[in-house]
Amino acid sequence: MAVVGGGPIGWAIAWRCAQRGLRVVVHDDRPGSGASSVAAGMLSPVAEAYFGEHELTGLLVSSAARWPAFAAELTAASGVDLGHRTEGTLVVGLTADDLAEARRLWSYQQGLALPITPLRPSELRDREPALATRVRGGAVAPGDHQVDPRRLVTALRAAAGRAGVALRPVRVGALSEVDARVTVVAAGCGAAALTGLPVRPVKGQVLRLRAPAGGPPGFRHVIRGYADGEAVYLVPRDSGEVVVGATVEERADTEVTAGGVLTLLRAAAELVPELVEYELVEAVAGLRPGTPDNAPVIGPLPGLPGVVVATGHHRHGIVLTPVTADLVAELIVTGEPDPALAPFTPDRFGKERTWN
Amino acid sequence: MAVVGGGPIGWAIAWRCAQRGLRVVVHDDRPGSGASSVAAGMLSPVAEAYFGEHELTGLLVSSAARWPAFAAELTAASGVDLGHRTEGTLVVGLTADDLAEARRLWSYQQGLALPITPLRPSELRDREPALATRVRGGAVAPGDHQVDPRRLVTALRAAAGRAGVALRPVRVGALSEVDARVTVVAAGCGAAALTGLPVRPVKGQVLRLRAPAGGPPGFRHVIRGYADGEAVYLVPRDSGEVVVGATVEERADTEVTAGGVLTLLRAAAELVPELVEYELVEAVAGLRPGTPDNAPVIGPLPGLPGVVVATGHHRHGIVLTPVTADLVAELIVTGEPDPALAPFTPDRFGKERTWN
Repeated sequence: MAVVGGGPIGWAIAWRCAQRGLRVVVHDDRPGSGASSVAAGMLSPVAEAYFGEHELTGLLVSSAARWPAFAAELTAASGVDLGHRTEGTLVVGLTADDLAEARRLWSYQQGLALPITPLRPSELRDREPALATRVRGGAVAPGDHQVDPRRLVTALRAAAGRAGVALRPVRVGALSEVDARVTVVAAGCGAAALTGLPVRPVKGQVLRLRAPAGGPPGFRHVIRGYADGEAVYLVPRDSGEVVVGATVEERADTEVTAGGVLTLLRAAAELVPELVEYELVEAVAGLRPGTPDNAPVIGPLPGLPGVVVATGHHRHGIVLTPVTADLVAELIVTGEPDPALAPFTPDRFGKERTWN
Repeated sequence: MAVVGGGPIGWAIAWRCAQRGLRVVVHDDRPGSGASSVAAGMLSPVAEAYFGEHELTGLLVSSAARWPAFAAELTAASGVDLGHRTEGTLVVGLTADDLAEARRLWSYQQGLALPITPLRPSELRDREPALATRVRGGAVAPGDHQVDPRRLVTALRAAAGRAGVALRPVRVGALSEVDARVTVVAAGCGAAALTGLPVRPVKGQVLRLRAPAGGPPGFRHVIRGYADGEAVYLVPRDSGEVVVGATVEERADTEVTAGGVLTLLRAAAELVPELVEYELVEAVAGLRPGTPDNAPVIGPLPGLPGVVVATGHHRHGIVLTPVTADLVAELIVTGEPDPALAPFTPDRFGKERTWN
């Protein structure tokens, strides 16, 4: 079988399929260079549970539950430390308005019985003294973890390689160029041109800061904040890196703009003032594969036998990697889609596949 | 003779001396890599005239007056377009407090009979419609021009080379390594270690933006603004580039920090809102050679016959290039310092040369 796309989704599918005895070739001229190279790597089923996205939330929860075992197995198979951290996530609001917005969402999440617990301001600051004294309040989502997406791709390549997966370093321009009984299209935004599915690029700008003097960042939770109406997240890594993200822009370019960087830095510095002393190491933009309903597209491509799609993961590609790989491998090996896939199959967009 | 330091000051001195018949070798392993590679290139004798710096202001005015002829001669000698632009500079204040601060300074400058003229807000916006409607007021300094410092170094190297100047690509660690009858130390911050003079690094962070779609920036004057207490300048280039600078920090590292970038972007976007749409192309930090009185150090080094110093130009290296080169060449050729050099000679720091 062939996998088109060497991001985390593609490599994880290839790895799982190889484990079940299939011969797999990943096709990508620049593996790991897509959305995952920019992603922060939050494993955030709870804080990413939005109004009206019940089915996506269910998939996020299911995949996040697989992450600890997935990380352990992958680390053992690859020898690569994934930077998997389980301190949990703080959701905070800077102003009264920001807090009201955050609270509206976590009340909804609590209504779904998801694990998120409001904290008093003093509890918040006990957990993270680096938070600005202006921060009005927040909540903790202890099960919302993080992983380093660049290390994830490195690990998946290594594990897949050891399981017999080959890499063909080509750019696939059309599915007819791929010679395989089964082809999985895990090409992110590139899936649109290959399949006609309504996958569109959603630009995100992301910064990487570095704590002073080679030390670790001055906070250990992932911090997701609202600051004067701007949503920002801060992801601390053991290496001293802090990922600050991300803009969400309906544009297809990858330019870093003054406005994008300004918005991120301003919100970050308002929430955690010590960040102004951090080095600005990188400012990049990537393109997430978005879909009309914000949910991924996973399943057989209508009208093209032997083609399976796994894309459209938008802001959730890293957290959804384990479940996507498990379900796609099961589908390919057994020929039967798991019922959990039903809300996400490509046929939900109808036969008309030129929508865009 | 030898010149230690291949920045604009060093090359200009070498060029002028070669024009007067001297054989000159410039010593630098990385010519043009110092403060000039980061500088914005404002030729700003008026807007840079500060309280208590009369003698420096006189030198700035004298050098700025030489710039048009210097630029014309250098362009002809090198074939390089310097990006010399003469639209002038607007000094603006965002808030009432900012305007009061700006007005305090331009009132002082008017008191010195320097050419700076207050404008009504409507006149300001007629000149630059890109200015934020919030900008409370400003003034125009029509004689404060600009040049591209990177092109300046390229041009000076070419002109000096054609005049017979050679480059020795070495890093000079001590003046005893230089074999010449006369040695000019134009090594910027490096002059401190070579001479013992009280030259210290003053860090500056600078951004380069680029106007959208390959067009020119949406404004033509250099804009120097005060925005919520932060001073920022915006230098538009024909290429579409806008230089945004600069922090002034008493530090010797060249790290780009989140706080530095945030301060510059925030002030820039408040003054000229369209800048948020510009690409952020570069964020860099450089080290200006500062002195205890903010004025340059130009003249014979006490106690070391044959050594002439030309450094400490701090924020004014580009505008001071012509006058520094002229006066140093005259000193070397005639052996007599021009009276204009008197306030700037190294002996003003006393015999104690380990101050720092």
